[in-house]
Amino acid sequence: MLLEGVHFDLSLMTPGQLGAKFIAVNASDIYAMGGMPHYFVIAMGVPGRCRASFIDALYRGIARAAAEMNIALVGGDTCSSRSGLVLSGTLIGSSRKTVTRSGAEPGNSLFISGTPGDSAAGLALLKRGKRRVTSFSTLSGPRKLIRKHLMPQPVPLRKLEGVTSMIDTSDGLLIDLSHLCDESRVGATIIKDRIPLSEELKTAARQLKKDPYEFALRGGEDYLLLFTSPSRRYPGAYAIGQITEKGRYIVDGRGRKRPFTAEGYEHFRTSGRGTAVN
Amino acid sequence: MLLEGVHFDLSLMTPGQLGAKFIAVNASDIYAMGGMPHYFVIAMGVPGRCRASFIDALYRGIARAAAEMNIALVGGDTCSSRSGLVLSGTLIGSSRKTVTRSGAEPGNSLFISGTPGDSAAGLALLKRGKRRVTSFSTLSGPRKLIRKHLMPQPVPLRKLEGVTSMIDTSDGLLIDLSHLCDESRVGATIIKDRIPLSEELKTAARQLKKDPYEFALRGGEDYLLLFTSPSRRYPGAYAIGQITEKGRYIVDGRGRKRPFTAEGYEHFRTSGRGTAVN
Repeated sequence: MLLEGVHFDLSLMTPGQLGAKFIAVNASDIYAMGGMPHYFVIAMGVPGRCRASFIDALYRGIARAAAEMNIALVGGDTCSSRSGLVLSGTLIGSSRKTVTRSGAEPGNSLFISGTPGDSAAGLALLKRGKRRVTSFSTLSGPRKLIRKHLMPQPVPLRKLEGVTSMIDTSDGLLIDLSHLCDESRVGATIIKDRIPLSEELKTAARQLKKDPYEFALRGGEDYLLLFTSPSRRYPGAYAIGQITEKGRYIVDGRGRKRPFTAEGYEHFRTSGRGTAVN
Repeated sequence: MLLEGVHFDLSLMTPGQLGAKFIAVNASDIYAMGGMPHYFVIAMGVPGRCRASFIDALYRGIARAAAEMNIALVGGDTCSSRSGLVLSGTLIGSSRKTVTRSGAEPGNSLFISGTPGDSAAGLALLKRGKRRVTSFSTLSGPRKLIRKHLMPQPVPLRKLEGVTSMIDTSDGLLIDLSHLCDESRVGATIIKDRIPLSEELKTAARQLKKDPYEFALRGGEDYLLLFTSPSRRYPGAYAIGQITEKGRYIVDGRGRKRPFTAEGYEHFRTSGRGTAVN
């Protein structure tokens, strides 16, 4: 369910972008279970101020993204809303092998399927610009990340062989890893230096005077896959840590080990040096 | 999709009643296609003012109605809403033979599976009472109709043999019959005297100083089945008219034939005598 003012801001995105994102975030949830999406049902609450051209553009965005992912729009409901635009979708998919959040085992490697933080940095740049971006071809340098925020393109894993647990990164790496650890009743240690940062994220973080790892660890809406496997390598994904018996830690380049929670890890840092644990 | 302030008013219904109705209106849509419901997915946007006890009661209402109809709750999404309560559901069912709105043929009889208008009269009585009804066992006489409005109980047809088209009456008999005629590209003639009126509706209409046929023809939310068949009879349903080549008419007890539209038929009545057609 996507609610205007809670999940999206139409002053920062076009209806077509919203439509595409609506499909993408749902497909991401199915990919995260090792499934493929097939059928989409849409319910829409439309405020009186919305013009037909707006709804047309929204549907074109939905239809284009659905076609790219081989998803059929099979039905839905439209009604009037007295507050903002309300979108609710149900995506039906299938899987041969269903992967859940609960199968991670101590000793498994922890993988991520792309560079986290890009979407959150893109959002920060978009907000700084204070207006919608209607053509992605004009974006260059770190502003390319705006596309990653507005039009996330989740990609399924090619092989599920050996994958013991999986989740998509919608809320942020630390939050989503915490969900995975909760469900699997395990701990995890992230090797900070192994987290892949895109060049655009590094540049954006400099421009925004922020730590790029803040975006990478806590930024949401990347829709990457975070998964575990007994293998040390997974083609096309990055090994960023290990599943352990218990405890949730980030180890930095100097070997310092700090605990993290779903709320973040910076909370534990005191007077710039960090609360060393172990 | 059910939106607070558009589709329901929490000053007139309990959360448990809302939950039950949420399931019922969706099941009705599946029955109307000759299917049986199986799996329900719920998305809920919850305003900050909602207490946990409210959500519990809502879910208990959903769960009880779902269990009665053999429906499994299989998933969903919960998020915060900055305006009213938002409920969106997707009900997945299956059918051996799918009945649509488009198969009615001239010469078919038109059937309805129960007494229309009860829900709308129940709503009128509920509004007159200006407060919620928490126990149905205290309702007597025409006020029994309040239960029909708050807790509609759609029932599937036992046999689909011979049924050529079907729709459920959610918007009102004339509107829903108009949808069926539009989709089937046919006309229809309703024999007014054959429309079954419940005793409670007749009494309620007297109390409310309204024409009971106003409720029966234009009142919504009965969730009965309106269907067509070449047979003259259908066990447990009422034959209320005929499908014709074209034209949409109501014939009254004196043989007067008046056209109707989705908007109603009273619009055509002038100076108390009616605009006779034919």
